[in-house]
Amino acid sequence: MSATASNSSKMMTSPGDMFTLENPVFCCYLFWSTVLVVKMLLMSLLTAVQRFRYKIFPNQEDLFFKNLEVQFDDPNVERVRRAHRNDMENILPYFLMSLIYISTNPNADVACILFRVASVARIIHTLVYAVYPVPQPSRILAFATMLLITFYMAAVVALRTLSFI
Amino acid sequence: MSATASNSSKMMTSPGDMFTLENPVFCCYLFWSTVLVVKMLLMSLLTAVQRFRYKIFPNQEDLFFKNLEVQFDDPNVERVRRAHRNDMENILPYFLMSLIYISTNPNADVACILFRVASVARIIHTLVYAVYPVPQPSRILAFATMLLITFYMAAVVALRTLSFI
Amino acid sequence: MSATASNSSKMMTSPGDMFTLENPVFCCYLFWSTVLVVKMLLMSLLTAVQRFRYKIFPNQEDLFFKNLEVQFDDPNVERVRRAHRNDMENILPYFLMSLIYISTNPNADVACILFRVASVARIIHTLVYAVYPVPQPSRILAFATMLLITFYMAAVVALRTLSFI
Repeated sequence: MSATASNSSKMMTSPGDMFTLENPVFCCYLFWSTVLVVKMLLMSLLTAVQRFRYKIFPNQEDLFFKNLEVQFDDPNVERVRRAHRNDMENILPYFLMSLIYISTNPNADVACILFRVASVARIIHTLVYAVYPVPQPSRILAFATMLLITFYMAAVVALRTLSFI
Repeated sequence: MSATASNSSKMMTSPGDMFTLENPVFCCYLFWSTVLVVKMLLMSLLTAVQRFRYKIFPNQEDLFFKNLEVQFDDPNVERVRRAHRNDMENILPYFLMSLIYISTNPNADVACILFRVASVARIIHTLVYAVYPVPQPSRILAFATMLLITFYMAAVVALRTLSFI
Repeated sequence: MSATASNSSKMMTSPGDMFTLENPVFCCYLFWSTVLVVKMLLMSLLTAVQRFRYKIFPNQEDLFFKNLEVQFDDPNVERVRRAHRNDMENILPYFLMSLIYISTNPNADVACILFRVASVARIIHTLVYAVYPVPQPSRILAFATMLLITFYMAAVVALRTLSFI
């Protein structure tokens, strides 16, 4: 890692080169953000699976079976939709926050660990919320992990750019 | 700095210069992402139009007409809100995915076609969902188009950055 | 185009260097985007506060008190959730729009003022919607401010990249 660090401090001098494949922090961000994007999109498909399993459709044109009426508020469907909404509330701001955090040229080891922990925490969040509900505080802990990491990155960026208020 | 500039104009290729107006792939992304941002924001206005047309307001302070009460679950308003939520679920992750896909320096023709097809598909999705509902599978096809394109980009980025797991 | 390129390379170094800490416009964006990310995440915590204050929980595993049942549609909780959803509908597209607006090398003073006004407007929006509801049109004005700023940025970017349609 020290080789990487010295290497990057040598050639990454120009702060304009943060968002390139030559920056290992950015590559780590790319990989784990991609994992989270795929995870989020799979929530749409999981919702669709639940809708077909329980035959709960919210639109007239979606009634693929006979003798069905539009229906809302099915607990099995709504649980997945709440998990999906929670993803949007937390992961989407995290995407931006961690992206702009990279521009402050953070320590490579710290940044990569934050990306990994936050991403794995959200995968756990989905498992214990939407796939196989388990008792609290498992979901709260998974939720808090990414939240605190995002707050930490926000603090780093805000302190670094406070003079541009 | 001039060294960096001449270097980048030489290869374009220098992965540091992906996010500039000199990169036609990035310019194509800029244009079509802007179109989708405007489309998404217009959903807010379309919701407002439906609320005023059917006099359905969810907050006490929004009751602009006499003898009204707060009301939810109007099918005309909720249809637009479902379409809007579906936009957030799909277009916002796509924005990040396609942005970071550019950093892998993809083939320009392929990337631009993907941006155009995905964007037009979501415009069609809005038309057949919220503006003028038509029978399925029109909406499913429009939905699947952007979803599959986002998955393709995710596969490209993940394979390229797998070693940074 | 070559005129534009030479112009930008003259004053702001090279167009490839927009997204660096050497660009004051980007730094201003970093600061205010961070403020908005934190504001959005605090909506999650505000929702949690309301859920505990009124003992309204949507999941079986969240029933932290005896003799409770899952419950939805509490007006105090739903008001915060509507404000939070409105944030996602407006601030998340704004994050992307203002980020890519920076790549067009806008006038620094104009761009920074837009970032500041839009961000303060959304903080006011949250205060008058979720924290202490006040009569309209306070919320509509706060909402319209960021919306119009985002539309303005969209117009700038679209005109600049129209040839890449």
